[in-house]
Amino acid sequence: MALVTESVADICLAAKAASRVLARADTSTKNAALHAIGEALIARTPEILEANARDLEAGREAGLSDALIDRLRLDAERVAGIAAGARAVAALPDPVGEVLDGGRLYNGLDVRRVRVPLGVIAVVYESRPNVTIDCAALCLKSGNAIVLRGSSSAIHSNGVLTEIVRDAVAGAGLPEAAVSLVAGGGRAELGELATQRESVDLIIPRGGEGLKAALMAVATVPVIYAAAGVNHVFVDVSADLDDAIAIAVNAKAQRPSACNAAETLLVHAGVAGVFLPRALPALRAAGVALRLDERAAALAGEPGDEAATEEDWAAEYLALVLAVGFVDSVDAAIEHVGRYGSGHSEAIVTGSAASARAFQLGIDAACVYVNASTRFTDGGEFGMGAEIANSTQKLHARGPIGLSELCTYRYLVEGSGQVRA
Amino acid sequence: MALVTESVADICLAAKAASRVLARADTSTKNAALHAIGEALIARTPEILEANARDLEAGREAGLSDALIDRLRLDAERVAGIAAGARAVAALPDPVGEVLDGGRLYNGLDVRRVRVPLGVIAVVYESRPNVTIDCAALCLKSGNAIVLRGSSSAIHSNGVLTEIVRDAVAGAGLPEAAVSLVAGGGRAELGELATQRESVDLIIPRGGEGLKAALMAVATVPVIYAAAGVNHVFVDVSADLDDAIAIAVNAKAQRPSACNAAETLLVHAGVAGVFLPRALPALRAAGVALRLDERAAALAGEPGDEAATEEDWAAEYLALVLAVGFVDSVDAAIEHVGRYGSGHSEAIVTGSAASARAFQLGIDAACVYVNASTRFTDGGEFGMGAEIANSTQKLHARGPIGLSELCTYRYLVEGSGQVRA
Repeated sequence: MALVTESVADICLAAKAASRVLARADTSTKNAALHAIGEALIARTPEILEANARDLEAGREAGLSDALIDRLRLDAERVAGIAAGARAVAALPDPVGEVLDGGRLYNGLDVRRVRVPLGVIAVVYESRPNVTIDCAALCLKSGNAIVLRGSSSAIHSNGVLTEIVRDAVAGAGLPEAAVSLVAGGGRAELGELATQRESVDLIIPRGGEGLKAALMAVATVPVIYAAAGVNHVFVDVSADLDDAIAIAVNAKAQRPSACNAAETLLVHAGVAGVFLPRALPALRAAGVALRLDERAAALAGEPGDEAATEEDWAAEYLALVLAVGFVDSVDAAIEHVGRYGSGHSEAIVTGSAASARAFQLGIDAACVYVNASTRFTDGGEFGMGAEIANSTQKLHARGPIGLSELCTYRYLVEGSGQVRA
Repeated sequence: MALVTESVADICLAAKAASRVLARADTSTKNAALHAIGEALIARTPEILEANARDLEAGREAGLSDALIDRLRLDAERVAGIAAGARAVAALPDPVGEVLDGGRLYNGLDVRRVRVPLGVIAVVYESRPNVTIDCAALCLKSGNAIVLRGSSSAIHSNGVLTEIVRDAVAGAGLPEAAVSLVAGGGRAELGELATQRESVDLIIPRGGEGLKAALMAVATVPVIYAAAGVNHVFVDVSADLDDAIAIAVNAKAQRPSACNAAETLLVHAGVAGVFLPRALPALRAAGVALRLDERAAALAGEPGDEAATEEDWAAEYLALVLAVGFVDSVDAAIEHVGRYGSGHSEAIVTGSAASARAFQLGIDAACVYVNASTRFTDGGEFGMGAEIANSTQKLHARGPIGLSELCTYRYLVEGSGQVRA
């Protein structure tokens, strides 16, 4: 891993040079590299697992939790899944070169707004080694160079995976500096990466609030922060109760660790009397621990439930815990979501067209659902093929960040000697 | 001006609350406010000029340069122009609510990506008071609240203009906190504004490099930096020479203080012998001071021209000064632009389809021109009606920032009880 000894600035400058070649690469060349990555991952699985075993051993010695060890672990099946992911990205449409809009100006100039790659994207992530390939594949396909900064706990796994990608990229005739690994896990190195304005066009942190805060303190490069998902399911007075129960259980319990899972259930007071006595047992049966406000507790509380505090309304549990509260109107639900929501995914269950419209207009979030689970906020589910992250900020991209969102645009203007009067 | 005594944080929170109302305001209501602004500007012109006179007097006492005094000065004609600008914004299409794309997912969910306002936009600007109305009008029309932070030298002018806007907005039934002025010019205040992540969605600095550096050091709110325009006109070997001369003169001299003016003329060595002896006299006749590289000087230099230094290639003169250099190929021109350009507006003059395509593909700038002047990079020229700034960064918006670019989007998803499997 000779690359480890290069400085962060040098790695980023090499990535910038590579990005100029990648930006002009044919779709078929990029797809060949992606298929080669898939093949090499399978062929070199023993080597990957050997490196991974070294990380796992070091992790156990360092006392990593079982959950972290599990996120770090690779096996043949997981490697095969990662390889399939790379091939799936090859099958997606190429976003580069798409004409977004255009026309002829008053003076005869023809203008086209054309999608082009951003350039160099840095991804900062924590233990999971599959992120190395997933993000490299999406950046390659969208014509971007990528600088990966994984955690030190996955250093051997990420090193081999990056080497495999670089070999495949070079084999397809593209510059291997299209994919680079900044190996260590130090905060100084993060600061260096986050200030390479000459070479890095975007940093995407995939990690916890500590990582985001560290980046926010130092970054001069643009960052897309994926905020927490404090998401709500609001059951309106006119909701179909079977749908409402299914949606509440699905949004909370189907995969509680996902950022698009629900953390709070809001219930219209007018329907709580019939809804909560059915919904709360269903949630408890799904293993959900409940934090109830006073009215909900009085109506359908059981021993084992807890009282919801002010902190519960703002909490992203990422676990089988759900806050449940009464609201007296759609407007009160909108106000609650406005105060505590993180702008990720918000759902109303309602039979009323007026309530649905009020919720859609009143909620300021990336994804607003009517009569569906919040769990669909996902690049794959949205038909974008894959996502590199999920944005809750408003600038550039909101919601799933897929291939198109890894691009910017350029105006191409063609004339016949026009000058400005 | 009671608002001056409010804290920056309070002003921004009030703007946030107003932004929720504005985001849902009808187009006709917003247009009524814009027309009322136009009428009030005319009706209250004496009051505006009186306030402006106080700023001018204070500016002269403080020793402001004639150029700054001129930028600060309003007269009845300029006020009428500003009023016409507000009415012109009323005539533009409303960007809010536009469906950008959408479709039905595999599971029957209907997804629409809909344009919505960003929320609260802060604009930090220097002396010109017309910016107060121009930016307020664009933000109002796009459903955004605006927090204006003008310079202390224009405090009285901006105060009256903001008051006029707030009266008109309130008269149309919209919250007057939709438009607020942070009055002072202190850096501490700028830092406070740039860290209101809870309430401010975007900061747009309209000013020099010092302002941008100050923001970059402190901002945690997203910023769109409008970098300098180090723009090039490249005259290819196959260029029509009349077009090339007209474009070079126009790009440099038609309005040298504009960010879309050219700063460097690159000439293919194969055509320099016939082009420079005609072009350089035309440029000198337009008042342009020339900085020539060795080959250009040897071929067509005159006493009074200067030698181009390394600094000249990177300079944004914003004045009647032009660097002129030889290049030996289209690729060499692309490389020069890649090294020294600021990603704003770049032009090739060529008769060759292959050269035009190579330039379009190889130049990473917001606007790439073939056979036209760089001076067209402008929201008005591009048919966007108006612009609040011009972006050379790649995230969110590139090139002119008009009404659409002051918006983000939201996914609206409608179902009939769908849950994730």
